[in-house]
Amino acid sequence: MTTDKRLSPGDTIGILGGGQLGRMLAQSAASLGLKTHIFCPDPNSPAFDVSAARTVAAYEDIDALDRFAGDVSVVTYEFENVPGATAAHLHARVPVRPGVRALEVSQDRLFEKQFLSEAGVSIAAYAEINSQEDLEGALERFGGEGVLKTRRFGYDGKGQLMIRETGEVAGAFGKIGSVPAVLEALVPFECEVSVIVARDIDGTTSCYDIARNHHENHILKTSTVPAGVSQTTTDTARHMAEQIVCGLGYVGVMGVEMFLVRDETGERLLVNEVAPRVHNSGHWTQDACLTSQFDQHIRAVAGWPLGSAERHSDAVMENLIGVEADTWGQVLKDPSAQLHLYGKAETRDGRKMGHINRISEKTD
Amino acid sequence: MTTDKRLSPGDTIGILGGGQLGRMLAQSAASLGLKTHIFCPDPNSPAFDVSAARTVAAYEDIDALDRFAGDVSVVTYEFENVPGATAAHLHARVPVRPGVRALEVSQDRLFEKQFLSEAGVSIAAYAEINSQEDLEGALERFGGEGVLKTRRFGYDGKGQLMIRETGEVAGAFGKIGSVPAVLEALVPFECEVSVIVARDIDGTTSCYDIARNHHENHILKTSTVPAGVSQTTTDTARHMAEQIVCGLGYVGVMGVEMFLVRDETGERLLVNEVAPRVHNSGHWTQDACLTSQFDQHIRAVAGWPLGSAERHSDAVMENLIGVEADTWGQVLKDPSAQLHLYGKAETRDGRKMGHINRISEKTD
Repeated sequence: MTTDKRLSPGDTIGILGGGQLGRMLAQSAASLGLKTHIFCPDPNSPAFDVSAARTVAAYEDIDALDRFAGDVSVVTYEFENVPGATAAHLHARVPVRPGVRALEVSQDRLFEKQFLSEAGVSIAAYAEINSQEDLEGALERFGGEGVLKTRRFGYDGKGQLMIRETGEVAGAFGKIGSVPAVLEALVPFECEVSVIVARDIDGTTSCYDIARNHHENHILKTSTVPAGVSQTTTDTARHMAEQIVCGLGYVGVMGVEMFLVRDETGERLLVNEVAPRVHNSGHWTQDACLTSQFDQHIRAVAGWPLGSAERHSDAVMENLIGVEADTWGQVLKDPSAQLHLYGKAETRDGRKMGHINRISEKTD
Repeated sequence: MTTDKRLSPGDTIGILGGGQLGRMLAQSAASLGLKTHIFCPDPNSPAFDVSAARTVAAYEDIDALDRFAGDVSVVTYEFENVPGATAAHLHARVPVRPGVRALEVSQDRLFEKQFLSEAGVSIAAYAEINSQEDLEGALERFGGEGVLKTRRFGYDGKGQLMIRETGEVAGAFGKIGSVPAVLEALVPFECEVSVIVARDIDGTTSCYDIARNHHENHILKTSTVPAGVSQTTTDTARHMAEQIVCGLGYVGVMGVEMFLVRDETGERLLVNEVAPRVHNSGHWTQDACLTSQFDQHIRAVAGWPLGSAERHSDAVMENLIGVEADTWGQVLKDPSAQLHLYGKAETRDGRKMGHINRISEKTD
């Protein structure tokens, strides 16, 4: 499908996925005068409440996909596990942005690592694992430890197994389901940082300031900007993020997670993972930048120029997970805080219910 | 109806009116985890695209109003000309905020001026006009000039007649339709400024920084913050705005328009008009404050505490009227600008199609 299509106000963006990311994308689209059509199998999708049109259907429902494609000018997605056949079917009918290639790469940890290596980006050592034997061989090379991860469908720590001791090796491949996997060498990182990068249809790129991320129970808890890293590290992070989106011919916003490693040689960064979509660690941009990551993604997929990624304030984003959202009344009393709730009817353990952005005067 | 009701996330706010103000209110409500139900006779209402529920019906449709009242926890409105009977009917079933009294006062220029005088707020001299004879008598007292305005249903310069010369007096009362009116003494003002004030259910008030407004063809064109007025004037403006909302027992956001008069005694302010709703001259708060006027209004009508009205950036808001909205492509290229479009299908002369907020580093 032609990839140079540019939308006009009043046109419709189709969004695959109706969770909080789809919801916040739809809100940005509306502010910019664009309509959205949300496609999601879940009839209680939070994004439906802020969207002009909706389809409740399975991602494999070809008839529904055809009607959806007929109603929209471009398709984007809020999650990387869009089935390949779905993306391909839509791509034959309407531009799919950021792009099918980005999905292929990010859906498979092995392809992702191969792509990142080829793009000249620094990553931790890794090995392809298709058997317990592969695993044992790789562990030997990596000093007996590493993280075993399924190649596909992992998020928020799911499909992962940390191996640090000999006793954890036996049966490890079976524990992750005996499915194709990768072993990543353990990296003694100081923290995770992330870069939200955008690329428009003309190839112009733009990065937001780096965020320092803190996880609890494998789920992002806070993102802090400024991240407290050197200018050199900042420049490197931006450069790597730009190499990635340019290498993919990407159109839209991407979240790039990196490990910050500090040793006798100084700070350095290793790319951990890419998310071909708006990213939780970029939610701070809603209240600390004129153009949020959601605005930026909508601009890019609409074929419009990017907005400024400049930051006017310092920010700390805090996720509200499960019952933490019950603290909304306290959050409302904090003059530095903006409350964001996703309108999810049911509170569940580990479920992202909302987030708080706390902003303060810019210090750097 | 009980006035101390407080909403919880997931509850629904009913909004009378589906224009751009209702739309931006609905967007803020969604961000705060609240649902909205828009009631508007126009099937093409821009607010429908961002709202969970809608009613297309006349404001006089009692059955529709009853169903609406049954579906929502509180009702607010985006325009001051809500029919009195509609407000009263709803008020008997569900809290109506900011309140029925605020509607009564703001729907009638005479009541408004009487209320403002009683509240101890400075206003220009005025006279009640029910005939050509009344008009001629009042003009004599006001030095032969003044602005004749219908008491009801005036906005954006409609229902107004400027009288500066003797030749403009004859038949003037007939020209405005021979309806009840007021004559306002002409005030040699330097500019119009406005204050966006909020009051919550517990009586706490909060004001945004004053904006300096510039009109073209009787329609607001730009609002600039900071307004370039003295601290004393700022304090006076805030004090008057607070007197007004407290005097009305108001719950929500109000726009208070004032004339800035500069003479040998210095700067002084005269209140021109109040709008019992979010106000066009407060749109700059969307991009220059953590809590926008729309967030603030939703917080107040939900029975929640107000957010901070602090400004993190300087701002100039510019309305896009009629075909001016066709410049959207240029606006997107300006890194200091955030584009806001209202999703109106039809461009018409004088119609507000969107606005631009341009922000810059805070200077005061």
